[in-house]
Amino acid sequence: MNERRVTACVLIIGNEILSGRTQDLNLQYIAKQLNLCGISIAQAHVIPDLHDVILNAVNDARAKHDYVLTTGGIGPTHDDITAECVAAAFGVPLEMNDYIAKRIRQRPAAPDVMENRLRMAYIPKGARLIDNLTGGPPGFSIENVYCMAGIPSVLQAMLPTIQFEGGSVVKSCSVTAFMGESEISRDLGQIQERFGEEPSLGSYPFQKNGQFGTTLVMRGTNVEQLNKMMKEVKQAIRLRGQEPQNESYDWDD
Amino acid sequence: MNERRVTACVLIIGNEILSGRTQDLNLQYIAKQLNLCGISIAQAHVIPDLHDVILNAVNDARAKHDYVLTTGGIGPTHDDITAECVAAAFGVPLEMNDYIAKRIRQRPAAPDVMENRLRMAYIPKGARLIDNLTGGPPGFSIENVYCMAGIPSVLQAMLPTIQFEGGSVVKSCSVTAFMGESEISRDLGQIQERFGEEPSLGSYPFQKNGQFGTTLVMRGTNVEQLNKMMKEVKQAIRLRGQEPQNESYDWDD
Repeated sequence: MNERRVTACVLIIGNEILSGRTQDLNLQYIAKQLNLCGISIAQAHVIPDLHDVILNAVNDARAKHDYVLTTGGIGPTHDDITAECVAAAFGVPLEMNDYIAKRIRQRPAAPDVMENRLRMAYIPKGARLIDNLTGGPPGFSIENVYCMAGIPSVLQAMLPTIQFEGGSVVKSCSVTAFMGESEISRDLGQIQERFGEEPSLGSYPFQKNGQFGTTLVMRGTNVEQLNKMMKEVKQAIRLRGQEPQNESYDWDD
Repeated sequence: MNERRVTACVLIIGNEILSGRTQDLNLQYIAKQLNLCGISIAQAHVIPDLHDVILNAVNDARAKHDYVLTTGGIGPTHDDITAECVAAAFGVPLEMNDYIAKRIRQRPAAPDVMENRLRMAYIPKGARLIDNLTGGPPGFSIENVYCMAGIPSVLQAMLPTIQFEGGSVVKSCSVTAFMGESEISRDLGQIQERFGEEPSLGSYPFQKNGQFGTTLVMRGTNVEQLNKMMKEVKQAIRLRGQEPQNESYDWDD
């Protein structure tokens, strides 16, 4: 078993997310997909459509993480500047990609509209393509940086086509205690201390139909340790006078 | 009219957002609230429950922005470490706050549970309180850093109680063109160029009932300029053979 931790940084590019106009839905989707490949998102940054901000964020992230995934800014308009920023980050020019251009030309349009649309054919020199299952223009990747669309349906038609080299897959299991977090927080802290960094034990309070509860989520690569931690967590819940509920595991035995 | 641009950085703290377990809903809410006060979110970072990462993110953000808002990590469990990280970022100790402690003690609990709950009374020395309209423990602020809960309903009971000193309020207006982005992207680029940085003109394609459309969003502090830009955008849509639709303005005349 490969115990290497593989990490990704997600750059969510777009003024519309920062202004509150648009609710980002991509981070959660990307996180779940990457989890399946054994890649954990270490950080995510929401950044505006500004050349230097994007350039610096790309260079910083690609030096620190195994993978960088960007969403947004690869359309045909003046505020779509991801390709030029990534090219600048790598110190390479933008270059028209013949395959993308051909694909764009397949849909007929007036000459000036076609010219606008062909903006999407320019990608950083040396970049590889990311397929787009909607049939629209592909995304692209260069070294460890993967640039995809911001529209969720298009992103979801791109990401699954990428072959990542992940590490150990992080599994998770959870159980609900119908009590406030404070009732059990010390026990949880002690359990976490005994196990060290892994599995991680997260505690998420909720209120439902006037009833307080806390969902306890364990995440780690070692199923044996996860099972052991689950046992201790359930015991702690019972010692506090409640029966553990909604026990769930995201792996098959 | 105060034309100063006031910016904020939002730190979304929590492994559950990065793992995809939880969909963040706070950024959009905060963005809309801050817009009303004349504060723009310049960047947002989603970071894990790790001491050094939080400490560095706080110090970096508070040096670069007028305001820093954090969400998450102020509960009573071992993975709630925002208060200690912010204290460390400012080089001050954690200190028990008598008012919070009193408020926590009002709800009776067994001694050990009370001890866990009192963890939430420890805030950085010198911090001010952020009221919590749910009646639960307050958040806190120190200098320009405001620390609030991660649970959306609690965050929404804290943020509106804060008095920010904002700058010019960014207004926005929008209009829909029932055409693909490429049909109009060159015109938009030219309009943006003529106006310079402000107002900003964003273009957001959508597909609805099989019909392609593009929403054009203009944002800026100067209503006169916004109206002027709207006129040009509408004219561009008409020149491309379509009637502008869904014209909307977020200010009263």
